[in-house]
Amino acid sequence: MAVVTTLDSKRRKAPSSPLDALAELVADDLKAVNEVIVQRMHSSVEMIPQLASYIVSAGGKRLRPLLTLASARLCGYTGDKHRGLAAAVEFIHTATLLHDDVVDESNLRRGLASANAVFGNKASVLVGDFLFSRAFVQMVDTGSLEVLRILSNASAIIAEGEVLQLQTTSDTNTSEQAYLEVIRGKTAALFAAACRVSAVVADRPAAEAAALDDYGLNLGIAFQLVDDVLDYSALQARLGKTVGDDFREGKITLPVILAYRRGNEEERTFWRRTLEEIDQTEADLEHAIALMTRHNALRDTVDRARHYGAIARDALGLFAESPEKRVLLEIIDFVIEREY
Amino acid sequence: MAVVTTLDSKRRKAPSSPLDALAELVADDLKAVNEVIVQRMHSSVEMIPQLASYIVSAGGKRLRPLLTLASARLCGYTGDKHRGLAAAVEFIHTATLLHDDVVDESNLRRGLASANAVFGNKASVLVGDFLFSRAFVQMVDTGSLEVLRILSNASAIIAEGEVLQLQTTSDTNTSEQAYLEVIRGKTAALFAAACRVSAVVADRPAAEAAALDDYGLNLGIAFQLVDDVLDYSALQARLGKTVGDDFREGKITLPVILAYRRGNEEERTFWRRTLEEIDQTEADLEHAIALMTRHNALRDTVDRARHYGAIARDALGLFAESPEKRVLLEIIDFVIEREY
Repeated sequence: MAVVTTLDSKRRKAPSSPLDALAELVADDLKAVNEVIVQRMHSSVEMIPQLASYIVSAGGKRLRPLLTLASARLCGYTGDKHRGLAAAVEFIHTATLLHDDVVDESNLRRGLASANAVFGNKASVLVGDFLFSRAFVQMVDTGSLEVLRILSNASAIIAEGEVLQLQTTSDTNTSEQAYLEVIRGKTAALFAAACRVSAVVADRPAAEAAALDDYGLNLGIAFQLVDDVLDYSALQARLGKTVGDDFREGKITLPVILAYRRGNEEERTFWRRTLEEIDQTEADLEHAIALMTRHNALRDTVDRARHYGAIARDALGLFAESPEKRVLLEIIDFVIEREY
Repeated sequence: MAVVTTLDSKRRKAPSSPLDALAELVADDLKAVNEVIVQRMHSSVEMIPQLASYIVSAGGKRLRPLLTLASARLCGYTGDKHRGLAAAVEFIHTATLLHDDVVDESNLRRGLASANAVFGNKASVLVGDFLFSRAFVQMVDTGSLEVLRILSNASAIIAEGEVLQLQTTSDTNTSEQAYLEVIRGKTAALFAAACRVSAVVADRPAAEAAALDDYGLNLGIAFQLVDDVLDYSALQARLGKTVGDDFREGKITLPVILAYRRGNEEERTFWRRTLEEIDQTEADLEHAIALMTRHNALRDTVDRARHYGAIARDALGLFAESPEKRVLLEIIDFVIEREY
């Protein structure tokens, strides 16, 4: 609850989001990162920069590279390796988006036609591989094996999370614990690595690297929990945002898990028909949202997110006050208290 | 021609293939590599080791890791890092196979149901990503940034080659030069890297690393040229091997390029119908083979392969005689003079 209050008072002072504030704070770095991204996307095979720039410039928030840049400043880092690392982190993220859209058979991404819808699944798989490889080329240039270890491990964990999600899709017996493992992998591992690598290039003590890892991991979990709530948000639907993707794909997210466990047998039959058999009518999404609302499944998922947000907040306790620390704390609230 | 003679005399002495001979020569190393592979495939997400072991154990020749092991011995290397590198090379190869089968929509791989046919495209994309990430985790363990640079660059070049192949598919105007760029990327780059990294861990002079790179690159080009011939081989068809995959997918390989350029307008109309429009009847593959035979397109593609084989042979001239050198030379002949 304290989190919300803090956020509200912050919001009154600064109308722009803390992500915008962070982008301003690290404007020079961010410009350099964007230059590295454009340069590393280059290939004489023309479809590669075409497709890569389509997705890289498709309105992403650059949240993960911003975390790398802010973490580096938090660590007092004065070199320039964090820029290349931030670009590598964004490339890994972009590669996973490309492959995700193929796996999810998505036609939309951030409200635009997804890359696979425009360029085809084949190109999306292969350009994903290209960006992933270039991320590693980029990391090698930082000269740190420890950074490579962290990000290659994170990449393997991301893939594990995605496969686990595939296994739990349409399985209404999925437990909250199994769901948490999915999102730790598919989302939080890269947030954690994006923050940790900055402590490594800044040559900070292990405790600070671990603290940044904790911050990123818990922020990532909170971020994904809220993302999963937004996909069932009536307000988002009214705002014209796409909702119901997870529902249509039979993804078992925490709002579903809570509503299913708290529901009666008739409701469970509904969940099994719509999510296991993917036998859905026009009105089913609205009914799903009504059931979730009846059981406070959305509200309580946000509550779970606040729990992880609180851990992320405490993780930064080691660091002295600074504009970067302030904005990293604000990002926790921003991620959790989105409109839903 | 000398190449063939040498091969024939060798073949009379040793009935087994030089790959078998090499596997015997490095038996201890190969056993260790297989152990690393099994260990690195491990994941608590059960679909990953299931799918990974399905493809890793699906009867591959382990040609690329064998090249790494033989190259290490050629360099007099006495450590054990070559084992982990050979496993990483095989993982990169396996990841690309998984993604290739998704991209090519293949249902068969080495005569067995392909992984995507058994486990689905989604799992194949994601487990490919997992194996690729684990390859990098494995390389980090060797502690050599130079090795990571070589293999991450090679991975990017593989992806470029695959995208270029996608662009040239069904394009009968593809030039021999463009085709060569495709196979340099999709096949030869990993052969080159697989050999070069051994010189790096053995701390050999740059000239030896470059020589091994040349050997691998040219061997890889020859290998792919002959593979492309085999896909149109009447003898292979008689032996019960699958042929015509490239034809059915509209891939523009050198046999097609030569037959198309040497053919008359009626023949070119045939090639455009079958490969550009993928409008094919039962009898078309046989007719394609007949046209290639009429224009010596298959024979001359093998001749082109012999040219690259000769370069690979000369690349090893720097190295003193040894059982490893002998078998690496024999592999050139083996790769080129397969049954077609």
